[in-house]
Amino acid sequence: MPPDHPLPRRSRASTSPASRARLSDSQARLSDSWARLFDALRTSTSDGVGITRESYGAGESLALDIIEAEARTHGLATERDAGANLVVTLPGRDSTLPCLACGSHLDSVPQGGNYDGAAGVIAGLIALCTLHDENYVPTRSIKLYALRGEESAWFGRAYIGSSALFGKLTADDLSLPNLASGRPLIDCMRDAGAAVDRIARGEPLLDPNTIAAWLELHIEQGPVLVARKLPLAIVTGIRGNFRHRGIECIGEAGHSGTIPRWLRHDTVFAVAELITRLDRHWRTLLERGRDLVMTSGIIGTDPAEHALARIPGRLRFSFEARSQSTETLEAFYDLFRSECAGIAEERGVRFIFDRRLDSAPARMDETWIARLHRILREMDLPDEPIPSGAGHDASVFSNAGIPSAMIFVRNEHGSHNPEEAMDMDDFLLGTDLLCRALREGSAA
Amino acid sequence: MPPDHPLPRRSRASTSPASRARLSDSQARLSDSWARLFDALRTSTSDGVGITRESYGAGESLALDIIEAEARTHGLATERDAGANLVVTLPGRDSTLPCLACGSHLDSVPQGGNYDGAAGVIAGLIALCTLHDENYVPTRSIKLYALRGEESAWFGRAYIGSSALFGKLTADDLSLPNLASGRPLIDCMRDAGAAVDRIARGEPLLDPNTIAAWLELHIEQGPVLVARKLPLAIVTGIRGNFRHRGIECIGEAGHSGTIPRWLRHDTVFAVAELITRLDRHWRTLLERGRDLVMTSGIIGTDPAEHALARIPGRLRFSFEARSQSTETLEAFYDLFRSECAGIAEERGVRFIFDRRLDSAPARMDETWIARLHRILREMDLPDEPIPSGAGHDASVFSNAGIPSAMIFVRNEHGSHNPEEAMDMDDFLLGTDLLCRALREGSAA
Repeated sequence: MPPDHPLPRRSRASTSPASRARLSDSQARLSDSWARLFDALRTSTSDGVGITRESYGAGESLALDIIEAEARTHGLATERDAGANLVVTLPGRDSTLPCLACGSHLDSVPQGGNYDGAAGVIAGLIALCTLHDENYVPTRSIKLYALRGEESAWFGRAYIGSSALFGKLTADDLSLPNLASGRPLIDCMRDAGAAVDRIARGEPLLDPNTIAAWLELHIEQGPVLVARKLPLAIVTGIRGNFRHRGIECIGEAGHSGTIPRWLRHDTVFAVAELITRLDRHWRTLLERGRDLVMTSGIIGTDPAEHALARIPGRLRFSFEARSQSTETLEAFYDLFRSECAGIAEERGVRFIFDRRLDSAPARMDETWIARLHRILREMDLPDEPIPSGAGHDASVFSNAGIPSAMIFVRNEHGSHNPEEAMDMDDFLLGTDLLCRALREGSAA
Repeated sequence: MPPDHPLPRRSRASTSPASRARLSDSQARLSDSWARLFDALRTSTSDGVGITRESYGAGESLALDIIEAEARTHGLATERDAGANLVVTLPGRDSTLPCLACGSHLDSVPQGGNYDGAAGVIAGLIALCTLHDENYVPTRSIKLYALRGEESAWFGRAYIGSSALFGKLTADDLSLPNLASGRPLIDCMRDAGAAVDRIARGEPLLDPNTIAAWLELHIEQGPVLVARKLPLAIVTGIRGNFRHRGIECIGEAGHSGTIPRWLRHDTVFAVAELITRLDRHWRTLLERGRDLVMTSGIIGTDPAEHALARIPGRLRFSFEARSQSTETLEAFYDLFRSECAGIAEERGVRFIFDRRLDSAPARMDETWIARLHRILREMDLPDEPIPSGAGHDASVFSNAGIPSAMIFVRNEHGSHNPEEAMDMDDFLLGTDLLCRALREGSAA
């Protein structure tokens, strides 16, 4: 982001006294513990710029070891599952009941931030330790997952650790090369201790029926909570998307001085009008309460032929829209194609579409959303729903049929960079919310 | 231009019988002569793809030699002026009167077309030969100029031959390297026989007071005459322009999924809206009878940082507007900057402007325009005014204070490419118009 960041900045200490006051004694005692844990992760996986915890690689394994050692210090049982993820358990009275699961991932992008993923794992660990310290014995077991391979930065495939659990990795996925070393994913997973033979057979390593729910705390990767001055929010759903990597607009090149407006087939003017019309639809759809964001991240005339005094005969652009609702995505896609057709007709240009790529939205569980909202109100905190624009392991659990929910913690400067900035007081509030939810959900 | 050319195509023979009928006998006799001349130019300067007549270089010199030899065959006197341009003279009775000048240039862009420039020189030669064959003796002399160095393709400087005549070449101009060989312009001009010492001193080689008027026939480099089914048109003026080579729009990059519309500072959406607003103003100004074209020929997100799923935080684009009217250009520039400011405010982006570049419009002479229109009507041809979007030597003569006028001849596929397509019947009509105008203008 540019240095002259135009968004309102919140003082780091602004919520501290109030937040502190809301923390339980045992959580306050754990303050040192979490600060030490975040520091340990940061120090041991620093790359000099940010932190690097490669999916199914050294930094990630080190992070799992640190969390596991901390869990054992607090007397919690740990194990590695068949996907080589770390699992920490607070055993329940009735081992036949589906357990309640929480957690997040411990890998990072190269030169990433210390909180993306790790915040959810440490929050879960604090929650389990808190309950354990209180000698609380849940009815059903509570499990914390420190997942591997969530970031797509290393193999071009996201959610590897959670997908492995549900038998969702294909042969193509397993042969994906590490973008740095070129080693295939299957080899990296084998080295980390995953049961690659079972995974390669597409065998589920975890029966979704044994998990009552998945709760994931994560830093917000966007700016909404900062802008709205909210420490926490409950995720309503994870946006799906449609994408075109490169649409070509073809018009007619020509001398910029000699061709009057009525004889032009100018692709820059055509695509500018297209985007402006889509922007108008966007505003209207938002006013009607639809969830939608859209982006044309890549656009450009062809350097091989463009010139200051040449009407651009070709323009290439990407287009992506995201929504929590498949219906909204489909309706908007129709609108998008219809506007392209209208502009093609009016301006004498044509559009060549590459393959449409899709990613389905994931719904968060209504009952869990309602419970988290109620607890937030009990904590005397603002009760704000927010969609997740980025993908999360929670979508894998949700799409496996497991009721899932997410807590977002306020964070500045987005994610995937060393500038991530989560206020520790916000984090403790989120941990408290998670702990209360786990206590309530594991009691029945 | 793309192969699927969407403009209406005119049958090559459509005007032939009518046009032929309008030609004088002597012109008809010259049919072979002009066909042979165009062929001689094409053959001797072919590069295998199109024709190449380098400014102050070999192909251009060859073209001057061919025209000079033809003029001598017809008994006309020829000379090279101090700018190394070819001058053919039909002497008048009164050598003290300012002469009437016509002509165009003989250089071309690399792999260019045979008609851009040469058509005007050959038309002038046919006119002079026609008058000479008729034993017509004008009151004032008529001179044909076959100018050098009009195309900016070779030295990055246009109108070299005509500018030299009026002392308008600077030391910087003269040191410009040939874009192919790297040789400085001054050396190439010296080799061609130009009086480079006088030129380097900025000494005018030609007194504007000795030229009563400049008439230039040229192919239209745009598609208007084809689209309107007109063989000829009279140029009202040569458009000037303002240009920005690269304006930077700075917003804020971010994850395409996590940032809602109200927190975005998306440069692609900002510039799309800017161009769409300018397009709306353009339509309005045209409806009010203003002359204007505008182009953003180069636009692009930064390949070093753009991505499908990244809100574009930077977008660079060129912008150019052209008009025959300085007033329209200035008013539109104000509008342009005001729309940039409005969008910057509304969308939280900012624009960084590079240096504004200007080129002044050139007015064609009202009296000559009126005369050419009257002759067109006498020839029973449509009487259509048209602006010139491209620059021409006529603007140099006009800006030197010489009453100037231009005749455009219909031409397909634009210029600066081997696909230029001028119908020879249209060309003969234009030559007839030029000849009548020279006769009339040289009588008084």
